[in-house]
Amino acid sequence: MAASMWTKLFDRMVGSFLHRGTLIIQLVDGTVLRYGDGQPPEVRVAFHDEDLPRRLLFSPEIVMGEGYMDGTITVENDDLHGLLQVLLGNFPEGAGTWPGLLRMFRKIATPILQFNPTGKARRNVAHHYDLSGEMYELFLDTDKQYSCAYFRTPEVTLEEAQAAKKAHIAGKLLLEPGMKVLDIGCGWGGMALTLARDYGVQVLGVTLSTEQHKVATERAAAAGLSDRVEFRLTDYRNVRETFDRIVSVGMFEHVGAPHYREYFRHMKKLLNPDGVALIHTIGRFSPPGSTSPWITKYIFPGGYCPALSETMAAVEREGLVETDVEIWRLHYAETLRHWQMRFEANIDKVRALYDDRFCRMWRFYLVASEMSFRYGGQCVFQIQLARRQEAVPLTRDYLYVPEARAALRAAE
Amino acid sequence: MAASMWTKLFDRMVGSFLHRGTLIIQLVDGTVLRYGDGQPPEVRVAFHDEDLPRRLLFSPEIVMGEGYMDGTITVENDDLHGLLQVLLGNFPEGAGTWPGLLRMFRKIATPILQFNPTGKARRNVAHHYDLSGEMYELFLDTDKQYSCAYFRTPEVTLEEAQAAKKAHIAGKLLLEPGMKVLDIGCGWGGMALTLARDYGVQVLGVTLSTEQHKVATERAAAAGLSDRVEFRLTDYRNVRETFDRIVSVGMFEHVGAPHYREYFRHMKKLLNPDGVALIHTIGRFSPPGSTSPWITKYIFPGGYCPALSETMAAVEREGLVETDVEIWRLHYAETLRHWQMRFEANIDKVRALYDDRFCRMWRFYLVASEMSFRYGGQCVFQIQLARRQEAVPLTRDYLYVPEARAALRAAE
Repeated sequence: MAASMWTKLFDRMVGSFLHRGTLIIQLVDGTVLRYGDGQPPEVRVAFHDEDLPRRLLFSPEIVMGEGYMDGTITVENDDLHGLLQVLLGNFPEGAGTWPGLLRMFRKIATPILQFNPTGKARRNVAHHYDLSGEMYELFLDTDKQYSCAYFRTPEVTLEEAQAAKKAHIAGKLLLEPGMKVLDIGCGWGGMALTLARDYGVQVLGVTLSTEQHKVATERAAAAGLSDRVEFRLTDYRNVRETFDRIVSVGMFEHVGAPHYREYFRHMKKLLNPDGVALIHTIGRFSPPGSTSPWITKYIFPGGYCPALSETMAAVEREGLVETDVEIWRLHYAETLRHWQMRFEANIDKVRALYDDRFCRMWRFYLVASEMSFRYGGQCVFQIQLARRQEAVPLTRDYLYVPEARAALRAAE
Repeated sequence: MAASMWTKLFDRMVGSFLHRGTLIIQLVDGTVLRYGDGQPPEVRVAFHDEDLPRRLLFSPEIVMGEGYMDGTITVENDDLHGLLQVLLGNFPEGAGTWPGLLRMFRKIATPILQFNPTGKARRNVAHHYDLSGEMYELFLDTDKQYSCAYFRTPEVTLEEAQAAKKAHIAGKLLLEPGMKVLDIGCGWGGMALTLARDYGVQVLGVTLSTEQHKVATERAAAAGLSDRVEFRLTDYRNVRETFDRIVSVGMFEHVGAPHYREYFRHMKKLLNPDGVALIHTIGRFSPPGSTSPWITKYIFPGGYCPALSETMAAVEREGLVETDVEIWRLHYAETLRHWQMRFEANIDKVRALYDDRFCRMWRFYLVASEMSFRYGGQCVFQIQLARRQEAVPLTRDYLYVPEARAALRAAE
């Protein structure tokens, strides 16, 4: 097919869905394509490779991400937010509205294999989390919380919102001093250290990242908490003890749908009969389906964004009892906005660690993720689970009403 | 097979699962069978029909319920609570633990067809809700709330707990004066009248029960709310207007799994773009499966108790956004306990309306339901839905924290 034929097909495809906002694309030969209703945001994009229209048809997300990384796609004023708003904002939230043609291409282009034995899990984790620790300090909060913060109002700082997230999760865990807590996917240890310090519990944190394990262990020693917190470089499936509480924040995204039953089966085994667990994970409003192929290729190999239906199906089959499901909307968009602002403020330091392509890749990751929470039907699920329904109070008052919390403590 | 062979098989089956508590069964020929660990509760049952062991093997729930209704199964001191506790309490909560043999019999015995066109829906509803209105007054609260109440503490009265339920749901609906509200399955009108009176909204309530429609309309007139509340004797699928809010309490149980997508498709059509809906329904912790065949035969034809996974699968496919899922545990057990106490206190009046078999049927229904919430893995889901994620505040504070609620009202 001649290049012009591919361009025509590309033009038709974009024209078929892009009705809100304005997108102007300049091709290599100087042709200008216009889409949308002429309303803001108006975004101007230049293609510097004549094969882009064809390649975008077959694999829109990968090629757009790579094009931005490689500089074959440039955006006027580097307005990635505007570009992704125009692209994602044209798909109504929720399910089943991705236009047929694009959906077909998407399906062809994204055969995701989520085969995830412990060895592969470790390699997937190393890909992302073993980046220089310094790198994460350049955009995360001071506690290095690499998951969605809790913004009671948009005005709070990232540090406050991350502290609020940890407190909210601690509330759902119904902690009592001396309890044994397992933190699956403990990151750089912030959650485990906070729970041990503020709630007097014993924590085992497990991670597959050598870098995280090293940093977390050092932090425990520095905080004088080594007697109450242990970090172990291992797969949660290798843990043999049992626990009163289990917390797993930002780890379920790496499990993959074919392994959900295995995940909850292990969780049940690891949990004492009166135990309570809290899973905090990115989720989707739309039906089970593929995760962004660009994200899977460059950022999180093996990553998968669950729908509530498939998550709960595994919970039900493994005989756990769901006791609360909170759905956080827009909190992660705010979190990512903060991360990107810090990233840009430290861009010179990032460039000292990695090359320019890495910087563009990371920017694309942060902005695309933010916009997918604003317009792409992504959210965060906090799923509280137990083995017995009596393990959790009758109402959710204990999470919000100080008197209810106090009554609970008095009853211990 | 000889009767004694069936009895042996029955004996083996009960012996295979009944390990906690004590069950003593006296057969027609005087044989006494003993099960359990000798601990309380100790329940003594007499069979007055020699075919019962065989029939119980094939269809345990139906035959037990019918046996109690017909008097061929009697329980010492009429201790139905104890009997059902011993039976249900031996199955750990949640999924997949029903012993193989019993599960097999259960599967054979319960082919449930949930074909539910509007005509059949009306007949199913008439079966239950067109019973004499007087009958429901003999066990429900004064507002005739025929659904799970909200017990912040076990000490509150049924009237207080039902008022708390309505207030909690109203909170989740984020009502503003003048809003148009649809109440799908409005019962005797208590919810609709409360919302119109206390929150200044316009309500359309729909029901398929002529008895409920008549009573609700009379109540609206008596309360001077006829200008703000309309009750319509129609299927929700026939409603053509759109609404700011939709509430549906204790109706989803009648929809049936094959119709979930249709239900949410209509809900989306009936909801304005910034709309919010709240579904309050009985649910199960275990995977999708059959509903008690005795309940389906005698109490709720066409009824089906949903798992969260199958409900959310339909929500996702119809492109609605889940904004909160609360799981009420044990609230319905408390509600049913209150209902049964009132029922027993009024048993003479019930007997004046219906015969003795009806009384036993109703008692079995109330007690079996209570025990299935205590030991049978049943619960209540409150699912809040929207078309846009921004339709609901960022956190759930507005439901619990007076200042957050006040700030919300000030922002209106």
